[in-house]
Amino acid sequence: MNGLMMDQPLLVKSIVEHAQLIHPDVEVVSVTADNPRHRYTYREAFRRSRQLANVMAGWGLQQGDRVATLGWSDHRHLEAYYAICTSGYVCHTINPRLFLPQLEFIINHAEDQWVFVDRDFLPLAEALAPLCPEVRGWVVMTSADFMPETSLPDVYCYEPLLADASDSFRYPQLDENSACSLCYTSGTTGNPKGVLYSHRSTILHTLVSMLPNVMNLGGHEVVLPIVPMFHVNAWGFPYSSPLAGAKLVLPGSKMGDGRELTGLINSEGVTLSAGVPTVWLALQAHLRASGESVPSLKRILTGGSAPPLAILEEFDRLGVESQVAWGMTEMSPLGTANAPTLLSPEQTTEAASKTRLKAGRQVFGVELKITGDDGEELPWDGEAFGNLKARGPWVCSSYFRLEESSAHAEPGWLDTGDIATIDPDGLMAITDRSKDVIKSGGEWISSIDVENAVLSHPKVAEAAVIGRPHPRWGERPLLIVVRDRGAEELGADEVLDFLRDKVAKWWLPDAVEFVDELPHTATGKIHKVGLRETFAEFEF
Amino acid sequence: MNGLMMDQPLLVKSIVEHAQLIHPDVEVVSVTADNPRHRYTYREAFRRSRQLANVMAGWGLQQGDRVATLGWSDHRHLEAYYAICTSGYVCHTINPRLFLPQLEFIINHAEDQWVFVDRDFLPLAEALAPLCPEVRGWVVMTSADFMPETSLPDVYCYEPLLADASDSFRYPQLDENSACSLCYTSGTTGNPKGVLYSHRSTILHTLVSMLPNVMNLGGHEVVLPIVPMFHVNAWGFPYSSPLAGAKLVLPGSKMGDGRELTGLINSEGVTLSAGVPTVWLALQAHLRASGESVPSLKRILTGGSAPPLAILEEFDRLGVESQVAWGMTEMSPLGTANAPTLLSPEQTTEAASKTRLKAGRQVFGVELKITGDDGEELPWDGEAFGNLKARGPWVCSSYFRLEESSAHAEPGWLDTGDIATIDPDGLMAITDRSKDVIKSGGEWISSIDVENAVLSHPKVAEAAVIGRPHPRWGERPLLIVVRDRGAEELGADEVLDFLRDKVAKWWLPDAVEFVDELPHTATGKIHKVGLRETFAEFEF
Repeated sequence: MNGLMMDQPLLVKSIVEHAQLIHPDVEVVSVTADNPRHRYTYREAFRRSRQLANVMAGWGLQQGDRVATLGWSDHRHLEAYYAICTSGYVCHTINPRLFLPQLEFIINHAEDQWVFVDRDFLPLAEALAPLCPEVRGWVVMTSADFMPETSLPDVYCYEPLLADASDSFRYPQLDENSACSLCYTSGTTGNPKGVLYSHRSTILHTLVSMLPNVMNLGGHEVVLPIVPMFHVNAWGFPYSSPLAGAKLVLPGSKMGDGRELTGLINSEGVTLSAGVPTVWLALQAHLRASGESVPSLKRILTGGSAPPLAILEEFDRLGVESQVAWGMTEMSPLGTANAPTLLSPEQTTEAASKTRLKAGRQVFGVELKITGDDGEELPWDGEAFGNLKARGPWVCSSYFRLEESSAHAEPGWLDTGDIATIDPDGLMAITDRSKDVIKSGGEWISSIDVENAVLSHPKVAEAAVIGRPHPRWGERPLLIVVRDRGAEELGADEVLDFLRDKVAKWWLPDAVEFVDELPHTATGKIHKVGLRETFAEFEF
Repeated sequence: MNGLMMDQPLLVKSIVEHAQLIHPDVEVVSVTADNPRHRYTYREAFRRSRQLANVMAGWGLQQGDRVATLGWSDHRHLEAYYAICTSGYVCHTINPRLFLPQLEFIINHAEDQWVFVDRDFLPLAEALAPLCPEVRGWVVMTSADFMPETSLPDVYCYEPLLADASDSFRYPQLDENSACSLCYTSGTTGNPKGVLYSHRSTILHTLVSMLPNVMNLGGHEVVLPIVPMFHVNAWGFPYSSPLAGAKLVLPGSKMGDGRELTGLINSEGVTLSAGVPTVWLALQAHLRASGESVPSLKRILTGGSAPPLAILEEFDRLGVESQVAWGMTEMSPLGTANAPTLLSPEQTTEAASKTRLKAGRQVFGVELKITGDDGEELPWDGEAFGNLKARGPWVCSSYFRLEESSAHAEPGWLDTGDIATIDPDGLMAITDRSKDVIKSGGEWISSIDVENAVLSHPKVAEAAVIGRPHPRWGERPLLIVVRDRGAEELGADEVLDFLRDKVAKWWLPDAVEFVDELPHTATGKIHKVGLRETFAEFEF
């Protein structure tokens, strides 16, 4: 017997309708190539997004067709997000940092019909156009005054397109399971794979992300997501901020620039920010060097990779609360959050530091488990490491156009590809990518724990640990270090001595190599496959 | 084209699973007839709820069957809530304050198979049993030691039933639209009507209620819902508190007792409470009389009826933030919340007082509109009053077993039966029940506004305004006042003089009558139908 409640689907257009009625005057501030501080309100954002929807209505698209974006985080990208998905098309956000062959693959695999492109990425678009002949048009997200010369075929300028369009648009009534957006995840091997979000998954993910135990996002916040809109929907902030009525500050291309970020935070009164550790390193380096402060900033969320403790401690000194969260493209992205209230006051400083570095507890809606190589579930004792698996209404069931071949190895559970522990309090900690794990004498060594310990050395800029074959133990850890500038004297013995009381004795690397830089993936992570190739000939 | 996200239904069992894993050790404290301070954890609550589910599995019920409760807010009632709905049955919470013929009607109309009953309501159950022959069994929610003699047929005692039951239970996989709970709403005329909530509506309502802009419910709170579990699921706290990991304090039968409430707040460290104005009057009267304080209490939510400003101002003096919310049984109940952050600092004190008394802004998921008698939508200008209509995924589409006859007059919109204004900021204010509205010379007078103005007079204990026929204007307002104790000298002229600068001149009542008490409905509201009957012969 069913309940007798209204059959109202969960749709992204509800965010538009809510924000327009309830907090239309809240600001959206963007850094764009043509205006370093573009400023308007949600009312205007959604008015223009309806104009864009009317423009697209003339393109002859079918519901479910993919329309791509290749752009930084700014107001036009936000308008495109909403215009595309509320029209019933799929907003395919492309990561412009990928390599050309990957971009070519992605656009053709997704069969993108149109592409919105930032001026900064025009050279990329010009290179792609001949490789992607099915694209019917390219829209440069700029105004007529700033429109550059381009060799792109079928090219339009964003502002003149909108200028004549009506801002009255009737949103089609969609099924809540219909596709809403698409994001490809680039593994270190093989072709990128597309994760296809639905309206339902987007709304549920948005609501849960806003809960007090998670991101605690209310209308009083000024939010600066320093995570690109092409990276898992900027962790959902383009949806959650208008739903909450939080002022949204979009940093354009300035995401790695500590000076620009400090200026944005201070001039806009940013209270909450979110990003990956690299971003915080840049911000903190600027604050140290300039002596500036960020008094409005109350909280930051850090994700993408495990942060070094030093970043969190520097935020402590700045009076900024920091919170670790974890997720992945396949999870919309939110999987866990380490709410600050979880730190019990009885913990020692050292225990508290370990606790706050963990990825956190599964958020409501997500279920996690860890399994051994035999597929059996492992205990939540904080000791057992296993393959981390997840399920929930915003977790991907299979990849786009790979539905059969990408079905999960364990039906109903996404294998995250991470190795993790979960402690009795439910706090999950990633110890490794499963393909990076080091198996020594039949036991697993966590490369991430060793790397984090090394990173706390003041003369170390970056570090990676990889497994290399060992005649006796099968594999042993090799530590690869980038010295901090001016620390040329740092040697292997000093590093190993430093580690001795920080990791288990048998985790201590058998050798240390120094390099000038480490290879990185397009999303800024250390490219361990590349490192293993570089050190393929290494012998202990 | 559908998204490729996991098909995970929204089910109440997810709250159980989440709470058990993520905050199993958080406490639930109850006032019961057999223990004034029962104390255990969510782990134990859900363990016992599985035992109860196993007991019920032996009762031969079908999915969708109704199992009723007739009880105060306590831990056993909480166990019953979860055991019933996670088993796939429907938890029918009955309001024991209803009159016997209404109770008889409700139980027979719902075809309740079993009834869980509190010791306090045994006399009621004994009177009901012969009138409700289809009920197959009665379970008295107490322990063997406290089990009274009773004439009830097929009667069981709760604790011995559970004692031998296994606590391992496999939750059936349900459709998210399946019915979860049932609550009858008693109008002032006609039979009570059943609102049938689904698992989906319950989860969505729970998530939205917890948002920072709404109830802002996180794991650090200690929650005391002073609203009964038989009254629209205690505004959702039995679901939201375990989801958040908030400590839950259930006050049993002590909901109107200021001394007991103060004791509970102080001994349990309550930070957040929720109730109707009558409850706050009792609490504040006790605090004034005793000189006690409630230092842990940070926030209260008030709903059920418009609060007098004096209550909110007394909370200001106590250092407790107060927030108005509005809802109804047909809306699960949450419709609007007046978030404190909405008060703009530029408002004058008087304007701010008016703003904070409003019902608030529609929460995400609920859409409101006001319409004139012609059904046309009225503007959100804060001036126009109209029939308030609502829709959303937790708004009822029709009443149980009245599906056809109770379809909404305007398809897709619930007519709330209230008259309201909505201002340009989206703040809704109820001005009247539509059946209580007074129409003078073709214009509407808000009885609620006049009543609230009268209530700010220090010698007035309670007041009601009703419309009475008038030869010239059609109807004019008659004010009926209960004097405060010791204020026998208060006369009509003093009241009317007091009102003169507080309401529009033509809203001023044409007469004032003094009475010793006003009639109330089972849910504590002023029974205006009764008043109109009492004053049927009144002539201006």
